[in-house]
Amino acid sequence: MFFASDNAGPVHPQILDRVVRANDGYAIPYGKDPIMDEVRDAIRTAFEAPEAAVYLVATGTAANALALATYCQPWQTIFCSEVAHIHEDECNAPEFFAGGAKLKVIPTDDVMTPEALRAAIAPHDPGDVHSAQRGPVSITQVTERGSVHSLENLRALTAVAKDYDLPVHLDGARFANAMVALNCSPAEMTWKAGVDVVSFGGTKNGCMGVEAVIFFDPSKAWEFELRRKRGAHLFSKHRFLSAQMAGYLQGDLWIDNARAANDNAAYLAQGLRVAGAKFLHEPQANMVFARFPRRVHRKLHEAGARYYLWDAKLEGNDEDAMLGARLVCDWSLSRDAIDSFLGHFE
Amino acid sequence: MFFASDNAGPVHPQILDRVVRANDGYAIPYGKDPIMDEVRDAIRTAFEAPEAAVYLVATGTAANALALATYCQPWQTIFCSEVAHIHEDECNAPEFFAGGAKLKVIPTDDVMTPEALRAAIAPHDPGDVHSAQRGPVSITQVTERGSVHSLENLRALTAVAKDYDLPVHLDGARFANAMVALNCSPAEMTWKAGVDVVSFGGTKNGCMGVEAVIFFDPSKAWEFELRRKRGAHLFSKHRFLSAQMAGYLQGDLWIDNARAANDNAAYLAQGLRVAGAKFLHEPQANMVFARFPRRVHRKLHEAGARYYLWDAKLEGNDEDAMLGARLVCDWSLSRDAIDSFLGHFE
Amino acid sequence: MFFASDNAGPVHPQILDRVVRANDGYAIPYGKDPIMDEVRDAIRTAFEAPEAAVYLVATGTAANALALATYCQPWQTIFCSEVAHIHEDECNAPEFFAGGAKLKVIPTDDVMTPEALRAAIAPHDPGDVHSAQRGPVSITQVTERGSVHSLENLRALTAVAKDYDLPVHLDGARFANAMVALNCSPAEMTWKAGVDVVSFGGTKNGCMGVEAVIFFDPSKAWEFELRRKRGAHLFSKHRFLSAQMAGYLQGDLWIDNARAANDNAAYLAQGLRVAGAKFLHEPQANMVFARFPRRVHRKLHEAGARYYLWDAKLEGNDEDAMLGARLVCDWSLSRDAIDSFLGHFE
Amino acid sequence: MFFASDNAGPVHPQILDRVVRANDGYAIPYGKDPIMDEVRDAIRTAFEAPEAAVYLVATGTAANALALATYCQPWQTIFCSEVAHIHEDECNAPEFFAGGAKLKVIPTDDVMTPEALRAAIAPHDPGDVHSAQRGPVSITQVTERGSVHSLENLRALTAVAKDYDLPVHLDGARFANAMVALNCSPAEMTWKAGVDVVSFGGTKNGCMGVEAVIFFDPSKAWEFELRRKRGAHLFSKHRFLSAQMAGYLQGDLWIDNARAANDNAAYLAQGLRVAGAKFLHEPQANMVFARFPRRVHRKLHEAGARYYLWDAKLEGNDEDAMLGARLVCDWSLSRDAIDSFLGHFE
Repeated sequence: MFFASDNAGPVHPQILDRVVRANDGYAIPYGKDPIMDEVRDAIRTAFEAPEAAVYLVATGTAANALALATYCQPWQTIFCSEVAHIHEDECNAPEFFAGGAKLKVIPTDDVMTPEALRAAIAPHDPGDVHSAQRGPVSITQVTERGSVHSLENLRALTAVAKDYDLPVHLDGARFANAMVALNCSPAEMTWKAGVDVVSFGGTKNGCMGVEAVIFFDPSKAWEFELRRKRGAHLFSKHRFLSAQMAGYLQGDLWIDNARAANDNAAYLAQGLRVAGAKFLHEPQANMVFARFPRRVHRKLHEAGARYYLWDAKLEGNDEDAMLGARLVCDWSLSRDAIDSFLGHFE
Repeated sequence: MFFASDNAGPVHPQILDRVVRANDGYAIPYGKDPIMDEVRDAIRTAFEAPEAAVYLVATGTAANALALATYCQPWQTIFCSEVAHIHEDECNAPEFFAGGAKLKVIPTDDVMTPEALRAAIAPHDPGDVHSAQRGPVSITQVTERGSVHSLENLRALTAVAKDYDLPVHLDGARFANAMVALNCSPAEMTWKAGVDVVSFGGTKNGCMGVEAVIFFDPSKAWEFELRRKRGAHLFSKHRFLSAQMAGYLQGDLWIDNARAANDNAAYLAQGLRVAGAKFLHEPQANMVFARFPRRVHRKLHEAGARYYLWDAKLEGNDEDAMLGARLVCDWSLSRDAIDSFLGHFE
Repeated sequence: MFFASDNAGPVHPQILDRVVRANDGYAIPYGKDPIMDEVRDAIRTAFEAPEAAVYLVATGTAANALALATYCQPWQTIFCSEVAHIHEDECNAPEFFAGGAKLKVIPTDDVMTPEALRAAIAPHDPGDVHSAQRGPVSITQVTERGSVHSLENLRALTAVAKDYDLPVHLDGARFANAMVALNCSPAEMTWKAGVDVVSFGGTKNGCMGVEAVIFFDPSKAWEFELRRKRGAHLFSKHRFLSAQMAGYLQGDLWIDNARAANDNAAYLAQGLRVAGAKFLHEPQANMVFARFPRRVHRKLHEAGARYYLWDAKLEGNDEDAMLGARLVCDWSLSRDAIDSFLGHFE
Repeated sequence: MFFASDNAGPVHPQILDRVVRANDGYAIPYGKDPIMDEVRDAIRTAFEAPEAAVYLVATGTAANALALATYCQPWQTIFCSEVAHIHEDECNAPEFFAGGAKLKVIPTDDVMTPEALRAAIAPHDPGDVHSAQRGPVSITQVTERGSVHSLENLRALTAVAKDYDLPVHLDGARFANAMVALNCSPAEMTWKAGVDVVSFGGTKNGCMGVEAVIFFDPSKAWEFELRRKRGAHLFSKHRFLSAQMAGYLQGDLWIDNARAANDNAAYLAQGLRVAGAKFLHEPQANMVFARFPRRVHRKLHEAGARYYLWDAKLEGNDEDAMLGARLVCDWSLSRDAIDSFLGHFE
């Protein structure tokens, strides 16, 4: 009954197998390995972006911070949601990699709205040397509250950015989960929607530790390579990053895994609904934010269920109080585990 | 015939096996996995340092830059060899992580001497606000030219540092190779010799991509954890770093691998000596710096041998010119490959 | 009719005279001049802080950014008002000098409340390596909206900070104006109220360009000196900064100037009140935030009055619309100029 | 008998007079004052550079660090002399402002030679992501050892830089002294010789604290303005920087002051020569590096002469030992003071 995060689950066998098979003799280090050529081709094909510059790093924070830094000057502001991972969970890595840039957070009830984004950008006066200058917009898809930006909303957000000539970054730690939820193509959710650079997540969806950074404008390539090396994120035995990503892409495993995770979340949500839980919003991808009584939380806790309370504490006297739970489902979760979880609601 | 680097070889089966076996169900992320407990214990035992703070990162540059930054203020100078990896091969990562600190390079014919180190440190006036302040001393063991600091020399270098109250970092990307060459214990080559923090390499000696950072003063632990996260070097699926290091340490594999690599280098050097090559200095660990005629380089090149010329170019007319080769041997190199390499000297 | 800022007025003759008189022969550079000794003594006496470390820089942004950086690690959060100068008007200087720290802004209707400050600090979990750590609290006195924190409020804010062991910075660009408004002593508004470090403004109150940074904990002295030099803010001909500050402190000129400025603002506010203007809040120091009809703005504008509209534009059709003006009075403003300004309301 | 530095002398009356006269009523702050227009025009005329972007800051370190940062990426190397002010006397300010760039120092017997510069630049491989990339070349004119680069040498150095497409910065803290020594025009010593950006010193030559940064390529203007503000180096009461520079330029005062300083140095050198002193090299501008016996140093020291020993200590037993003195002459030095100094050689 592990719902704490999708970053704690196992590596999918197909991916592990590619890693094991990559361990054959010598390979040119630092990203020049032939498997990386395969990865680059596969991503370019999947994204219908034959010119895209494609790089691998091992953590999502590295992907985000390096991608943003490549599009941000130190005297600029990065616009993001108030619950964005880059703001809340990266210990100032974006500020560090961007040389001291500022994050301006946008109040978001659920997904960021174009109006809220515009209201955050507009007051900045680009001719005023005293205030931080406008910089990139970062959108999280799936959001940290489990919502999925519709393609319409994505396009509306990037249109606001383009009104001000600002680049757009997509934090796609759960890229595949969002794509499956939207039933769209990678291109539709990125460059066709106005996105300039993507953190394309692998780790949370069955890999060991690999994320791709995809630039649709290849002129950013060399600067990114230098930033990656200077950030100590260039692997010598890079083939083992390449192998993970190759295994992930092969036969659309990445989509299958995301579908499995989303289906698990839908199954869980349906069970919770029946059991009387209240939702922060309708679950869309692989995360469920639900409220149910403290006494149920207690039972689950004692039974060893693992998940985060997102706005409350288990300790307290009111047994009927509705505490919020963040329940994350990964591809490997079994229906048995979900049924066992739901069993404690009876 | 791959002698280009020890970072291009395969992962040792025992290590890969631990990685594969680690892939079982859910594991608490971000370094709280139980395998990390095993790793911490094993390193503390091996280093006779029961209080040491032990952390894992995936690249040598991360280990070096984060370890140094923890001991360096931005207005200080890091003292290192003019051929140190941190100076020549990390694209300003140490400067980046240390917030703009300066590297002062020490001329080194072979290994850094205490006299040269003192001559570099002494002129800095700690009461002068205009010049950069004295900061940590970084020693590379094995050096980038393949030499090994004797324990006497190490102790003499750290004594100079201690005369000025400066902390000492050991870049041990090839830690095991040096230890085997010196036939000493980990403690003798580190804290007993006056070293404060070690980059303990795994990647070049049979791992996939893992280095330990070992602080003998555990009061640095929390700052390092924050720096690692902010540097985007904290892995969510950390168990796969832990598993590598656990496999590496198990049954002294790390020492066996280093011995195999050093033996390969000795065998190669002996063959080269017989063939009339000249050495930059007597090979001590797993790197051989040797000079031999251009025509032999040509033959080797055509036969597919891979290695770097360290101070010359293959192009040229003088077939008898003695060009310098850097020949790195890893644990996996076969005697057949070496013999085949040597065969081109006939 | 210049009400745009108190940083555009002339230097007080007593201060200019000290600058001119300082120009006598040679003086030891870089802050070792004898006039600095006089300044240090005068500030220590005025603040009843015989151990305080006292330094001079030439801009308010330098004072703020260097003071905060001395109390902030790069992985920490600085807590400040959403309208703080350090957030809105320093082009990421605090982030730059603090190595990439984050500013967390606190919604403030008028002055920051202890409740709002606590609500901003509390959610940070100091044991969580993922989120930025808690860092210094910065309070602006006079606020950027012209309000003055009462001593009670100041003490309540610093009590919140102390609950979390956080240091407190006071941005006192208009320190004297606040002190006069509160009719209190420098010590009461700083260390007796729980403040650790002050940016003590001179430039806006009759100096040419000088601000003092006062640390009540002298153990921060040497680090600040290094940060000041590294930030290129250490003056060689420092005597001319010292002379300004000496002239400013001499005979309590700083208090007299502030009183004159505050009296000017009170006189202006009274006239505006009679003329029917509405106030953002009751003017307390030397800034008046008032609303009056667009047609009056137009007349003033045409007559050459200089001030900022803080939330509206002069352009527009509704002549009766109440537009907000920020009217800043300095010590040098004449009653004639104010009367002339008020004359346009008739 | 003050020969310690040219940054400890008085402000020239003509400059102080302009400062005093600038103190008239209100002036638009932050560099928009009308005196700045006058300064910009005067510098553009003097440098025959009608498009140049011209800015003022208050310290030489700020001018150097901000100018270099504008031409340097954090992963690049700045090439400079091993005795350059930016390397030895700015407490890592260039590294700080350039986001962690590296300084590579070039061994210089006296002035930097084109051969030594090329030898430092050439080994960097621009396609190698591991090593720092090539960045700007910084030349100091007058050098920190008192020498003046000939126009031929300057052109040869910038030609090397241009061979590698590298920008060239001139640290002209003593710009006027060099120009007088070479009897050339400002343009000949800068853009006509291949220089891209100049730190044009005022402080050491009669100003209170002002340096101009002159970009011959105006496309760098806005970035510099943002960097200056973010570095806390934009003055609100900027007119007092402008007034200094206006007074400095008026009627070629800057040239007259430099000529006076250089003549003082020549007079001093001649006296020293007659007295048997040995020179590090023939004095060219306003600094004399001379060796004379310890016993003379003792007499001078006791008589209150102020100067630095550059490679020795006064303490010692050998009264005949030849100790090196750095003797800096400014425009204000009197012949009486020099004669009095020389009198101790008898």
